Amino acid sequence: MSSPEQSGATERTAVVLLSGGLDSATTLAVAASEGYQCHTLAVDYGQRHRSELEAAARVSQSLGAVSHRVVRADLRAIGGSALTDESIAVPETASNGIPVTYVPARNTFLLSLALGHAEVLGALDLFIGVNAVDYSGYPDCRPQFIAAFAELCRVATRAGVEGAEFAIHTPLIHLSKGDIIRTGDRLGVDYAMTVSCYQADAEGRACGRCDSCRLRREGFDQAGLPDPTRYQS
Amino acid sequence: MSSPEQSGATERTAVVLLSGGLDSATTLAVAASEGYQCHTLAVDYGQRHRSELEAAARVSQSLGAVSHRVVRADLRAIGGSALTDESIAVPETASNGIPVTYVPARNTFLLSLALGHAEVLGALDLFIGVNAVDYSGYPDCRPQFIAAFAELCRVATRAGVEGAEFAIHTPLIHLSKGDIIRTGDRLGVDYAMTVSCYQADAEGRACGRCDSCRLRREGFDQAGLPDPTRYQS
Repeated sequence: MSSPEQSGATERTAVVLLSGGLDSATTLAVAASEGYQCHTLAVDYGQRHRSELEAAARVSQSLGAVSHRVVRADLRAIGGSALTDESIAVPETASNGIPVTYVPARNTFLLSLALGHAEVLGALDLFIGVNAVDYSGYPDCRPQFIAAFAELCRVATRAGVEGAEFAIHTPLIHLSKGDIIRTGDRLGVDYAMTVSCYQADAEGRACGRCDSCRLRREGFDQAGLPDPTRYQS
Repeated sequence: MSSPEQSGATERTAVVLLSGGLDSATTLAVAASEGYQCHTLAVDYGQRHRSELEAAARVSQSLGAVSHRVVRADLRAIGGSALTDESIAVPETASNGIPVTYVPARNTFLLSLALGHAEVLGALDLFIGVNAVDYSGYPDCRPQFIAAFAELCRVATRAGVEGAEFAIHTPLIHLSKGDIIRTGDRLGVDYAMTVSCYQADAEGRACGRCDSCRLRREGFDQAGLPDPTRYQS
């Protein structure tokens, strides 16, 4: 491949998945603090909270990423989640087991795009802000999923066939929401830029009632930091 | 999940990736011949040959699939292949190594969508028409890639966590192009419906010169069957 971007790739080039939410912003800050040249990738998969995508672009720029791309992919064609199927309501009470906001095979899909982007760039490091503590209901946020994806990279790619080792970095995987926020705060993340709400309005203001809003608010409480979130009311 | 389609899922429900080309049409015919209720999935990833997508819909219907979906995903945002980046020419001579028509992480991406669709349907069987003989230059067409993806399914999904075993079926993986065509011909595939060309025109007529056209024509020769392909000249 002869992409002009590839010629600038180094061992410290990384692809960072960025949703515009709190976790992925913190992940980008961690990657940058470790010296990676970060190329951020946001995926518009038909989720309801499009204001997150605008947040992703702002966060990417504010944390010094080298490039930011958006891949559009309409997962509404397969549905199956409150985030991609308008006939399924976003819950406003805590749920047991895997919640309806789970998007089938979402992280497999997101990492496949990150892997494709990494191949084009000549990068071997992928960062994803999964968390196995607060979101333990999602099967594809667990360490065993990440390990299996890393193994897949080894056999799925040109670089892997040639012996290169990919690394899937999950710096948040064992952190509580409070610890994530403390980490990002220390690294200069402006959380006022981020949108976590599953049903944010067009201006990115949060509902304050969904699971994601609740976890985020509790996180600021745990961290002992003021919550900069803009709420709808 | 409460999709109405899920209630009709059986142990013999399968998701079949369908490109509109010769290989995936044959794969669908094999799945149907084995008794699977087939849900076909085509992915419009910004490839140049959009007439393939129309071919996929025709093939799905003609071979009795239960449903057909199209997921749109714009891989042009990451580029890196002659199929998704207009600045890279489709080659018309045979190449050594991995060809420029290789789309980075394509089969990881396609299988992630098939897996998501399977989760929504409650299906455990995925079919993909990869082939390790004629396309040995693509890393994600090899048996070790398929095995790694099957392992990933086990840890990536709700059903896997609950102990279900996914199977990734690759009925063509070790067949020559001639054997693929003989198999499909025996199962009633109408190859005149399919489009393999990397640069087919709007009516689905093939260029006759690209790698894919060459392999297809040689396949009909090997099979001893007339080539029903419509060529541009």
